[in-house]
Amino acid sequence: MNNEVVGIIAGALSCTTFLPQVVKTWKSKSTKDVSLAMFLIASLGTSLWLYYGILIHSISIIGTNIIVLIFSLTMLYLIFKNRRKDPE
Amino acid sequence: MNNEVVGIIAGALSCTTFLPQVVKTWKSKSTKDVSLAMFLIASLGTSLWLYYGILIHSISIIGTNIIVLIFSLTMLYLIFKNRRKDPE
Repeated sequence: MNNEVVGIIAGALSCTTFLPQVVKTWKSKSTKDVSLAMFLIASLGTSLWLYYGILIHSISIIGTNIIVLIFSLTMLYLIFKNRRKDPE
Repeated sequence: MNNEVVGIIAGALSCTTFLPQVVKTWKSKSTKDVSLAMFLIASLGTSLWLYYGILIHSISIIGTNIIVLIFSLTMLYLIFKNRRKDPE
């Protein structure tokens, strides 16, 4: 298999890593066991990757990190919305 | 700021993204709200990144993905251990 095919499949999987968590949380509306810090770090890290992609003019880094950032911010929104509704 | 400094900070944050979830789950032993699919995709994606790093001889890709893979597999272990103990 061509090296870049492996890289592209790996990248596609990385992009969608958070998607099942977003779907699960969207349906269940329960975030008790989910780490807020994980999605804070993910949002910050992804924002920096996005900035890095802009700095070095890499469309691949910009595109993939926009997708991951959307999922991370959606999870932050769901966690905060749920905690306000149901504080522990 | 140097472009590569941004990239290194982004990479360091990406490496530690799953750590807070591992710590939280290790302490709480509760994984009801955590998506199994997220950590299955993360483990598969990270394994492919690791393979890609080996193919293109990139120490940075190999090193960072070993760290993320350890956290992903730890989460899979905790989720399966918890589900066996407390099936829903």
